[in-house]
Parts: sequence; C-alpha cells; structure tokens
Amino acid sequence: MSRFFTSRFSSLEPYVPGEQPKNRDYIKLNTNENPYPPSAKAVALAREAAQSLELYSDPDCALLREKLAELYGVSPDEVIAGNGSDEILNFAFTAFCDENTPAVFADITYGFYPVFAEINRVPYRQIPLKDDFTLNPSDYYGAGGTVFIANPNAPTSLSLTMADIENIIKNNPGNIVVIDEAYADFGEFSCIPLIKKYDNLIVTRTFSKSRSMAGARLGFGIASKELIADMNTVRFSTNPYNVNSMTLAAGAGALADEEYTRENIEKVKETREFTASELRKLGFEMPDSKTNFLFLRHSGISGVDFYKKMKENGILIRHFSSGRIADYNRVTIGTRAQMEEFIAVAGRLTEGL
Amino acid sequence: MSRFFTSRFSSLEPYVPGEQPKNRDYIKLNTNENPYPPSAKAVALAREAAQSLELYSDPDCALLREKLAELYGVSPDEVIAGNGSDEILNFAFTAFCDENTPAVFADITYGFYPVFAEINRVPYRQIPLKDDFTLNPSDYYGAGGTVFIANPNAPTSLSLTMADIENIIKNNPGNIVVIDEAYADFGEFSCIPLIKKYDNLIVTRTFSKSRSMAGARLGFGIASKELIADMNTVRFSTNPYNVNSMTLAAGAGALADEEYTRENIEKVKETREFTASELRKLGFEMPDSKTNFLFLRHSGISGVDFYKKMKENGILIRHFSSGRIADYNRVTIGTRAQMEEFIAVAGRLTEGL
Repeated sequence: MSRFFTSRFSSLEPYVPGEQPKNRDYIKLNTNENPYPPSAKAVALAREAAQSLELYSDPDCALLREKLAELYGVSPDEVIAGNGSDEILNFAFTAFCDENTPAVFADITYGFYPVFAEINRVPYRQIPLKDDFTLNPSDYYGAGGTVFIANPNAPTSLSLTMADIENIIKNNPGNIVVIDEAYADFGEFSCIPLIKKYDNLIVTRTFSKSRSMAGARLGFGIASKELIADMNTVRFSTNPYNVNSMTLAAGAGALADEEYTRENIEKVKETREFTASELRKLGFEMPDSKTNFLFLRHSGISGVDFYKKMKENGILIRHFSSGRIADYNRVTIGTRAQMEEFIAVAGRLTEGL
Repeated sequence: MSRFFTSRFSSLEPYVPGEQPKNRDYIKLNTNENPYPPSAKAVALAREAAQSLELYSDPDCALLREKLAELYGVSPDEVIAGNGSDEILNFAFTAFCDENTPAVFADITYGFYPVFAEINRVPYRQIPLKDDFTLNPSDYYGAGGTVFIANPNAPTSLSLTMADIENIIKNNPGNIVVIDEAYADFGEFSCIPLIKKYDNLIVTRTFSKSRSMAGARLGFGIASKELIADMNTVRFSTNPYNVNSMTLAAGAGALADEEYTRENIEKVKETREFTASELRKLGFEMPDSKTNFLFLRHSGISGVDFYKKMKENGILIRHFSSGRIADYNRVTIGTRAQMEEFIAVAGRLTEGL
C-alpha cells in the first residue's frame, strides 16, 4: 500500500478470481466457464463490429436490450447491460445500500458480495446457511436491508424454489431483493417473470456461463423501469460506455441463436449428472447441483490436498480455504471427455481411502 | 428516482455523453472520435480473440501491459489497464481521495471529474481557469488534495508545458497529481517519463482517440508500481476481468502498428491546422489546439444557435451550455473532406455577420 492510499479502504480485501494459468495446458475446471465455444452468430457479429471500433459503443446498448426484452418478455426499459454481471451487482450495491440499508446475504455464497459492500462502504450482515448448505427462506423475511441471493447458489450449487424466493420478496416490501441468476440456465426456473409483480426485485444474469461468453464480459439486470433508471444513474456516473461494441454485437448474435445455447445447456446438464453419479460411486459426497459445477468432498482426503493433487495431474479445480467449506472443492462441468479424465484421476486419488 | 434509491446519491447528476444518433447519417464531429479506422493488426487480433470467448479474459492483462511497458519505457508493474480511461480515473478517485483529501481540478475541464467525485462521495474544489482559458500552474501548488489535470485540456484544447506540470508535481509532494493525457498524442509531449522521478504522479491514457478504438473501450494508467498496486486493489474489488479478451487483443495489435497510429495523428494535426486557419478567415476565434478538436466561437452567432444550425445541416458538434463557455462549441477534427464540408457550412452560417 502506498502512502497515498486512502485510509477508507486500508482493510479492503479484494476478490481473488480463479487461476488463469498461461504456462501449462490444464484441463480447466476452476472458473465455471462453458466448455463449448460461443455461437457462430455471436462470433460473426463480434468480428464485424471489430471493423468499426473508431466510433464509441452505444451507451444505451439499445439493440441488445431490445433483444433481451423480447426473449424474456419484458420491456427494454426494464433491462440494463453491464461489463459482466459483476458490474450490475456493483451498481445495485451503490444505488440501493447505505448506512441505513445494509447488504444482507448468506455466509457461503458468491465471495464478491462482501467485497462489493466494502468498496461501497456499506455495512453488511451475513446469514449462515444451514449445516447442509441449504438456505432457510424465512431467515430473510424482514431482512432490514438489501438482500443478495445467488440462485442457484455458488459454490454450493443448490437452488431455492420459486415459491421460496417469492416469499422472501413478499416479506421485504420495504427493501430490494437481488437474485443473482448467473447459473439459473442450468437450473429449473428464472425469477425474471416476477419483476412484473414486484417492484422490489432485481434479477441479474450473465452471458459468461450458459452462452459461453466469459471473455466478452457481458451481464444484464432485469427489474422495474424505476430500478433500472436508478442503476443507470450510477452507470452514467461511472462509465457510460461500459459495454464495448464487439461485446454488444456478440450478445445480440448469441440471442439470435438460442437453440444453440439450449443444446449446450442440455449437454452440460447431462455431463453433470453423469459426473455426479460416477463420483458418488467413488465415495464423493455432493449436493444435487442446479448449476454447471459440482461442490464435492471425499471423507478420505482433505479439500486442499485433493485440489493440489488434481493440479499435479493437470486438472485445475477451485478450492476455497475458508471455514466450513474447507473440505470441499468446486468443479466446473467440462466436456464429457474432460470429466471422464477428472473421474479417472479422482478414482486414483481416492483409491482405497 | 425509485423509493429505494439511496439518499446518499439523491443529488447525483450523471455525466452526459455526446449524442450517438442512430436515425440519421450525420458528419459526426461531437465526441472526438478518430475519423480513421483502427489498425488492421488491431482488427485482425480482435477477430481472432472473438473465436475463444468461452474463457475469461486475462485479469492481469499481461500481454497488453508488457507491450505498453515496452513502448513507453516503463515496467509492466507500472501499468494498469481499464475499460476506457474513465475507469482508471475512477480508480484514482476511489483510491486516492477521501474526506481529508479532496479532488482538485479546474472549473473548465473534463466534465466527468465532478461526477467521479460525487459518486465516490469525496469533496472537490474547482480552480477557475484564467479568462483566456489558460491554467495558472501556481494555483495548484500545495493543492491540499489529489490534483486532476487534463493535459491537453478538454474542451479548451490548450496544453501546459512539461515544466509547468513538473512544477505542479514538485509542489505537491504530499499529494498525487493525475495527468489525464487522453489527447496528448495530438500535442507535443507526454508526462510518462516523469513517473520515474516522482512517486506522486499518475498518467492516464486512452486508445479511444489516437488509436481509433473508442468502441473497444481501452484505457491505461502509468505510475510507480506502488500506485498501480493501489489501483489494482480497487480494480480487484470492483471488476477483476474489467477488460474483455477482444479488446485486450485489439490493444496489442494496435501497439504492433505504431507507425499507422503516428500517420493518423499527423493527418489529424494537419487537418486541424488547415481547419483552424480557414475558420479564422471566417471570423471564428479559437485557442491554438493541441488536441484532435477545436474550441471555437464566432462573435456573430451564439454557441447554441451555431450548434443547432450545424445539426440542421447534418453536422454534429458538441455544445456545452454552462457559464462562460456557452458561446463556444467543441468540434472534432474529422477527415479533410468532412472538415471542408464543415468549413463550407460554417461560412454560410456566418456570412455577413
């Protein structure tokens, strides 16, 4: 820290993203990327947009918002686009939390929430998940702050029901509930339709996972037009041209190819079920995943040892060292062949344990 | 504003970017874009990167930072990349301003500075430029806060000397001086070499202007490695994957084609001198521009009328309605043909006035 760094943030602990190794060809199952390439339509439109970079990107993201609105049955003024859904989440922390409105979220969830709270200098309250990592909806009734729930949750891979979520929204009429649906396409439902019924709901989504566009950085939020307008106030006060032209074009291309997206989602889900079933035969325990990853442990090997040995064997997975999840690892669902290799290595590492 | 929007920001006035019209083909001289396309190498590498968007972009922006370091004679850990230089500026407001360290900048400069101060909830102090829009360096000695100076300045188009800037840096040993060099490639020097001498200097740059990449969103900051580390603390607490893969690749491509960039800069400067000379013959007054735009007025027509009539004639320029610059317009330097058209229309609009 330099002598100039503000004391405001002297205890700030930044988010640590998963490893992005450049020195070795790993089977990369550590950052929940999609193993399939983006839609050819997305690529084609991005390549076209690369030809006219001399002009600023559209600060209104109009075409993309129109297409998202059409797909999700909402109006374009109920949509905001961002440089990844992290940016949308950050806008929500900025716009809807303050000294009197803390952020409220689970103890085990997306690790960025406490960081967003810190960088926005807002208080936060963490509500412990139950021992089996399920979330008790009524713990969030009358939360007294802005609620952030990743659903399905990361890294636990578990999902609430739609009714659970609606109850949380209903029981916080004076506060906003943000449902972070980064992984929802691999689950069973989306809360987006509820924005028509509740003015205190924001749903955030990403193109990184189901649409194979992590490298393009594209996320979006859906909510009442009033909440979207508030987040735009923040957006135009930080980075009005927040999404570049190539990414806007790629997003529109991906949305013109929803069949491809659905096919990939199905493949990932099938591979997930296959992988889970094989791993259970090897003695691994894991919740029923509604995401594109598994959250697993084995009684015979510590979480950190399993992570390290996998890495030695050329497979990257994600280990979180903190507290009651230290025994676990988060393993992204790759291609069938990648998962067969993972299962084979996992079998060798746990043989006889 | 919704009932949920924090009172913290109830008086926030977002930055208003220049018009990006979609309904008519204007000659677009309003947002200081480069009239020439980006380097073919930038386009080719961006197109290639579009093929593998399923992987996250490099959070370290390693290759781009290496190439920038090489070009500017610094070390990679003295470089940070951002989603446009606006993002880097915002990082500086977050990291280096607070209740006790106000932001200090001119009254007439980049309109985003007061917005960045507001969104970061830091106090700011504006120091008036002189009547001729020049900046008096000694006004900034012992500024008692973090100094932000756009050099050359927008929208005035004027530049300080290197010695002026060095004096400001020297006379603020306890505070940071940020030199925003968005337009420096059209001027006569850069302060980047000074970062080796002063640990309280940050220089911010953009690919939007001289490298024709406004639509790609790419900016960077150069400073001592300690200040860069501080800004990375903020970056990793807001958006670790802040620059997408296509833009990182395009940036590296542009840097492999510096000759093309220099040629375009020379063309813009030549066209600027031609345009200024023709406009002066028509009675326009303007400072000697060190940027890719002119800041002009004519005693016979108000600033807003000139802007409106230009728009009626299919030419977009930028009007700022505030205070003592209300008589002026900011006119981007386009191609020679575009500027000939602008001069012709300007001649008709001011004939006999």
